[in-house]
Parts: sequence; C-alpha cells; structure tokens
Amino acid sequence: MGPIGTILLHETAGTAMLLLLGVGVVANAILAKTKGNGGGWLMISFGWGLAVFAGVYVAYKSGAHLNPAVTLGILSSGATEYAPGIPITVGTTFAYLFAQLLGATIGAILAWLVYKKHYDAEGEPGNILGTFSTGPEVRSYGWNILAEVIGTFVLVFIILLFGGTPSGLGPLAVALVVVVIGASLGGPTGYAINPARDLGPRIAHTILPIPNKGSSDWSYAWVPIVGPILGGVLAGLVSNAFI
Amino acid sequence: MGPIGTILLHETAGTAMLLLLGVGVVANAILAKTKGNGGGWLMISFGWGLAVFAGVYVAYKSGAHLNPAVTLGILSSGATEYAPGIPITVGTTFAYLFAQLLGATIGAILAWLVYKKHYDAEGEPGNILGTFSTGPEVRSYGWNILAEVIGTFVLVFIILLFGGTPSGLGPLAVALVVVVIGASLGGPTGYAINPARDLGPRIAHTILPIPNKGSSDWSYAWVPIVGPILGGVLAGLVSNAFI
Amino acid sequence: MGPIGTILLHETAGTAMLLLLGVGVVANAILAKTKGNGGGWLMISFGWGLAVFAGVYVAYKSGAHLNPAVTLGILSSGATEYAPGIPITVGTTFAYLFAQLLGATIGAILAWLVYKKHYDAEGEPGNILGTFSTGPEVRSYGWNILAEVIGTFVLVFIILLFGGTPSGLGPLAVALVVVVIGASLGGPTGYAINPARDLGPRIAHTILPIPNKGSSDWSYAWVPIVGPILGGVLAGLVSNAFI
Amino acid sequence: MGPIGTILLHETAGTAMLLLLGVGVVANAILAKTKGNGGGWLMISFGWGLAVFAGVYVAYKSGAHLNPAVTLGILSSGATEYAPGIPITVGTTFAYLFAQLLGATIGAILAWLVYKKHYDAEGEPGNILGTFSTGPEVRSYGWNILAEVIGTFVLVFIILLFGGTPSGLGPLAVALVVVVIGASLGGPTGYAINPARDLGPRIAHTILPIPNKGSSDWSYAWVPIVGPILGGVLAGLVSNAFI
Repeated sequence: MGPIGTILLHETAGTAMLLLLGVGVVANAILAKTKGNGGGWLMISFGWGLAVFAGVYVAYKSGAHLNPAVTLGILSSGATEYAPGIPITVGTTFAYLFAQLLGATIGAILAWLVYKKHYDAEGEPGNILGTFSTGPEVRSYGWNILAEVIGTFVLVFIILLFGGTPSGLGPLAVALVVVVIGASLGGPTGYAINPARDLGPRIAHTILPIPNKGSSDWSYAWVPIVGPILGGVLAGLVSNAFI
Repeated sequence: MGPIGTILLHETAGTAMLLLLGVGVVANAILAKTKGNGGGWLMISFGWGLAVFAGVYVAYKSGAHLNPAVTLGILSSGATEYAPGIPITVGTTFAYLFAQLLGATIGAILAWLVYKKHYDAEGEPGNILGTFSTGPEVRSYGWNILAEVIGTFVLVFIILLFGGTPSGLGPLAVALVVVVIGASLGGPTGYAINPARDLGPRIAHTILPIPNKGSSDWSYAWVPIVGPILGGVLAGLVSNAFI
Repeated sequence: MGPIGTILLHETAGTAMLLLLGVGVVANAILAKTKGNGGGWLMISFGWGLAVFAGVYVAYKSGAHLNPAVTLGILSSGATEYAPGIPITVGTTFAYLFAQLLGATIGAILAWLVYKKHYDAEGEPGNILGTFSTGPEVRSYGWNILAEVIGTFVLVFIILLFGGTPSGLGPLAVALVVVVIGASLGGPTGYAINPARDLGPRIAHTILPIPNKGSSDWSYAWVPIVGPILGGVLAGLVSNAFI
Repeated sequence: MGPIGTILLHETAGTAMLLLLGVGVVANAILAKTKGNGGGWLMISFGWGLAVFAGVYVAYKSGAHLNPAVTLGILSSGATEYAPGIPITVGTTFAYLFAQLLGATIGAILAWLVYKKHYDAEGEPGNILGTFSTGPEVRSYGWNILAEVIGTFVLVFIILLFGGTPSGLGPLAVALVVVVIGASLGGPTGYAINPARDLGPRIAHTILPIPNKGSSDWSYAWVPIVGPILGGVLAGLVSNAFI
C-alpha cells in the first residue's frame, strides 16, 4: 500500500476509534439512563485521553496524527516526513485532513449507535449536542479561541518534543497529556484541540435522526477549527527552538 | 506441561483472577455497607481494567486470552498460534473456552466469599445480580447486542494490533483499553465484551445461596454471549487489513 | 553494608514511606477540614497503590517487600534469595519483619504529624482510628479473615509471577495491583493485606496523644495479622505451579 | 547553546507548562461556570501530577527540575552535575532559580488567560487566590511548614533514588509521585512542595486585574518557600545513605 492508502486506511480508522470512545464517554456521563450517568469531569478526561491511546494503536502505521492540528503542526515544524515512509506533500497533507474528518464523523455515528436508545430517551437538546461537539460555558469568541489555541499548543508542542525524552510509554504518553489538557484546560470550551474532533461530530449531529436534538450551533463551529489550527502551527514553529 | 495443560491451568486461574476483581469492584461500589459504596462508574471502569491487568500476569503462559471473544478473534484472524508454543487446534480452542468459563465461575464465587456478609445484608435483588452479570439499562435486544459487538470489536481489534506498536507497557496496554471501553461504551449494557465474564457469574448467581437474590435473568443471557462473539470474530477478520 | 544492614535501612525507610502516604490519603479523605475531605474510595485506592509505588523506590535495594506477607510468601515459595544479594536466613527474615513493623509505625507517626491540626479538630473517634488501622464494616472474624486471605493472596501471587511477564513498568506494576485490590476487595475490611501496615499504625494510635481518639480496637488486631500471613504463604506455595 | 542558555530556555518553559496545567486544574475544579466545576481532589491530584509529566518533556534538556527544592536538593546531595552537561556552579544554580520563578509566573498568567471569563465571573476571593497559590486549611505556621517539609522531602528523595530502580516509565514516575503527594499529603496546606509554584502565581495574582480578587495573603508566602527548601535540602543530605 502506498502512503496515501496507508493514510486513508489508518488515519480514518484511528480517528473513528478516537471519536467512538470520546463521544461515548460524554454520552455515558450525561445522557439519560446510562450506567455512567453523573460520572464527572475526571471520567470524561480519562475517557478522551484513553480514546487517544486506543486510536494511536489503530493508526500507528500512518503516524497516528488523528488531528489536523497535529498534521499542520508537523508541517510547520519543518519536519521531513509525516511518519516513517510518509513524505510531506500536498497530497499526503490533504489525505490526512480528509481521513481525519471522515473518521471523526464515522466515529461519532458509531457512538450514537451504541447509545441509540439513550439518545432517544434524552429530553435536553444541550446534552445531546454536548456529547457530539464542544461548546463554551461562557460564549466569548476571542477568549474561547484563546483557550483552544493554548490547549492545542500544549498538545502539539509536547508531541513534537516526545522524541527527545527516553521512556517506554509509547502511546500512553500522548494519552496522559490529553488527560491533563482536559482536566486543566478543558473548563471553558470543552477542549476540542482538534478541528476534526469537533467538526465531524457536528456534521453527524446535523444529519442524524435524533429526537429533541435541537440546533447544531454552527455559529460556534469555526472556533474549534481556527483555534486548534493556530495552536498547532504555533507549536510547530516554536518547537524548533527546543529540539 | 503440554499446551492443553498450560491452557487449563493458566487460563482458568487468570480468568478467575479477572472475575474475582471485576465482580469485586462492582460489589464494593453498590452493595450495602461496603467501604467503597457509591464509588461510581470511574472506579468500576478502573477496577475492571486493572482486573484484566492482574489476570494477564496470572495467565501469561497461555497468552492470557481470558475471554472467548479474544480466542475466537485470534482464530478468525488466521493466526498460526494462540500463544507462543500453543497451536490452534480444535482441542486447544475448546480448552480455552472451557477454562475461561470455569475460571469465570470460580472467580465470581470467590468474590461472593469476600463480600459474603454484604450480599447477605443486601435487600435489592437488582444490586445483587448487577454485581455478577451484566444487564441493559434500556432493554432492547438489537441495540444491546450492537453495543456489545462494538465494545468487543474495540477490545479484540486493538489487542490484535498491539504487536505493531512499540511500548514497554506489557499488560497495562490491554488494561487501559478495558478502562476506556468501560468508561465510554459501558453505559447501555454494562459491557460484558466477554461471554465467559457474563455467563460464568450468571451460573454462580444461579447456584449460590444468597438471600434476596431474585432472578438470574436468563432471558438476557444470550445477548452478552452472541454480541461479544460477533464482535471478536469481526475484529479478527478486519485486523488483517491493518497489520 | 551487609544484608542485614541493607534490610534494616531500606525496608524500614520504604515501609515508613508506604505508611506515611497510605495513612495520609485516608486522613485527607476523612478527617475534618482537609482539602481532600470526601475524596472517596477511588482516591484512597489510588493513594495506597501509589504509596507502594513510592515505597518500592525507597526500598529497592532490599527487594522492597514492605510487607511481612510478601517476605513470608517468598520464603514459602522456596526461593533462594529475598532479593539479589540477600540470602534467606533466620536473621534476614527477622530483619525484614522487624524493619517493616518499625517502618510502619514511623510512617504512621509522620502522617499524624502532617495532619496534626486535623487530628486535633476531629471529633469522631472512628474516623481517627480509621486513618491508622483497618476495621471491618461488618464484624465477623471468619469472613473478615477470609477477605484478608484472598486479598493478600492476589497481591503476593501476582508479585511472584511478575518475573515471567515482560514489561517496563517496574514499580508501577505492583502499585496497580494494589490499586485494584483496594477498589475490588477492600470493601469488607479496608484491605490490610499486610500485617505491618495494620499493626504499626495501631501501635502508633495507642501511644500518640490525640484528643478524642477512643479505642485502638485491639480485639480486631489479630485478624489483619493472621489473614495476610495465611494469604501470603498460600500464594508462595501455589505460585510454584505457575512459574 | 551553553548551559545557562539551556537552563533559561527549558526550565522557564517547563515550569510555565507545569503552572499553566496546575493552576488550570484548580481553576477548572473550583471557579464558577467551568465544565469541571466540583471535579474534586482526585482530579486536582491527577492534574498537578500530569502537569509535571508535561513539564518534564518540555524541560528535559535542562534536567527538568521545575522546582527550586529539586535544584537545591541535588546541590545538597553532593551531585557533580545538575543534568548531563550542566555543571553545578553559582551561575547555573541562580539560572535555575530565576527561570523557575519566571516560568511559574508566566504559567499562572497563561492559565488566567484560559479562564479569563471565569475569573471575571467568580465572586468569592478565596476561590480566586486558591487557584493561584496554596494556603492552609488550619493556619498554624509551624505545622504548615512541617507539612511542606515532609511533602517536599518525599518528592525530592524519590527523585534522587529514581536512578537506582529500573523501569521504562520516564517522566511518568515523577508524575505519579506528585499524584500521591497531593492525594496523601496535600490535605493541610494544598502541597506547594515547590517555592516557585507558590511564589510565581502569588506574584501573578498580585499584579493581574481580576475583579473581586481580594488579598494575595503575603503573610503566608514565606511558608511555601521555607518549608520546601528545608525538605529538599534534607532529602539531598539523606539520599546519600540510600544510593
């Protein structure tokens, strides 16, 4: 399989795994009549972190970016490859972005299937959208974007520095960084820190037949796209001073 | 010791360890008068995940399947061995399945012994059965099976991909995958994701002399058998495209 | 330094570290006016597990038993050394047991110093004793001992099997086993699973000048000594069939 | 880049990362209208622990002290280098201390930017200061200092012993030690265990324009400076007997 095929297969599947488990943990924590109802923010933070852990195994062959902000961060860092054997070209770049968005949409749909009866039983539209996409607790586009920039910077910056620090943690290292970003920086906006993670599920929310689903809040959708891209590119540029 | 003996000894003991700790954490979280009463879903998710961690050490020599869905997933993947030195034959396959069911039953009985006085003091039959076997929050066989298929697919698929991702995590990797499956996908059915994990304790529940134990809900018992087997076999078939 | 000196220095310090952090987490969770008040059983389970993690680093040179049940389990397993360079003799055996009890007592006193003002402010004697020693939720010596036997068996059995399972986890493996024993098997008795862990703090409770401290409940003190010793020796005997 | 430049760049950035995530998790747990509001002490303990994890990656080239108590503990241990290639001199020592204080102040300001709208909405001055700096639950300088001495001793002592214990955990080991110090010893004072971690954010609190921020409580500020320095130096001196 060539690089494009590797990206399309692995990055789509890995991002789908990420979103299945990430949307799933929020659904379990907040939808009506689930076993994990009221599980709290620490459970959500561990759930998303370990969702990345699982996704990295699935997408290991394509470098497991799972996130356009990571792809663009690597690009802006001046790296020579996206992953071993995968060169940086216009084609591979768009393959990553396409696969991530496709995978994120598929993953959200799978999570909806798992929780189908609970989505049907949920009466509060805000809870339903909250399992799919992020949204701010206090709407203020400038500050919301800044929160996403900083959260994504932390993610991409540390990923780019992993190579210099010896450990045998493998995919666990990035998973734990995602746990702490959620616990520490997720309070204002719900930490998209990944444009595909937000946009894919928002598309799924728009097209899926869910009773009481309410608005998909497209007016906010640009924030978790622009913020993470800025944060990822900034991390790529800054990382060179540290490596 | 030959392969069959290795399987019977290690897989039985390892699955008993898994169920002792797995049934135990639910008993601690929901039975009357325990120290962990009200411990919540995150504690249950970590408990089951680390129960797998412990079980893998015990059953390391037999490959630590601990789960018919893993055994059948490996079989369907076209692998040549169940574990180093253990060939795939009709005999070894049935040895795994038998040992897993036996071990699961034994483990549930051991957990009952640990919590004997708390089972005796518990007045709510649903709580008692809930420590042994899984059950759906919203009963709907089709959707319940689908939740089990997807949850088990995640488990077996990632186990089959472990070999390709370098890390020094050993048994911790599968444990963390089980944590996130619980946190993220366990909300609708309580995530059997393992036919032996559900059937063995249900047998134990049926035969043990527990006051107020109520029905063992055998009408649901086929769901956590069929769902996980389908999910495991599917993962085995799909994994070949990713390795 | 000879083997006896190594044991006395490292095992005392390591067990003191274990008890400082273990007694500390319970104090934080249940004493009046602490920042962690109401932290819950999952916090306590992680606290004790990571207390072992810290203690193993401190006592690494003496093999980090930190627990008479581990020492006696190794002895009963027929091993030839307690740790690299430390032979099994009557002298080294008693050095371990003495150091563990001394360290446990010291560690509990250190934890009391950390929480001095909170012990002084606590009005409920059961809370005070509960931070030092274990006690059953339902008093029934036979079942309480059985819970301690099974919990300790799990601990010592898995420790003895660690050598056969490759991982780079080091002290984290035993820490995670202690986390799950707490979460899963700690509900009835508070999981001493270590005679020194219970006896040392009970001695400290008896001698320390704490207002409102109430009884040290010496009538229960033999249970968390006898149960863990039986469980550890049993694990040592059984482990030979699995290695 | 020479040693001083390496220290200034990496130690400042790493300590800023530590404080961004550490102040962030407390802000998420206690400020008004955050998604993690009420997240509890276990979330705070994991947040600070994983904040160290992230900071160590950023500051790996300068040895990732991130804490004057670690720097002074290494100094008092009689080590010959602060990190590979960084000699112990008056100049490097002051570079560490300066960079740590600068980084801590920057990190706290970044966390304030992330939670800007939530700080603005918070009406309780104690909550605002509590996200920046530590403070005792029961004010008693002697006992508060002792709690900080013991907590910091644990941290620095175990860091100094890491080298002797084989594992592949890398930065995770120190992160987990910080988790347990928080869970177990953080109850009385909020565990500064790091003079820069407390002083930098207190400076930030003093200068930032936050409505309702109230006093910065400078009368307590010396406690989390003196206590951790004493604990770190003591750990350095004692560690030689154990290595």
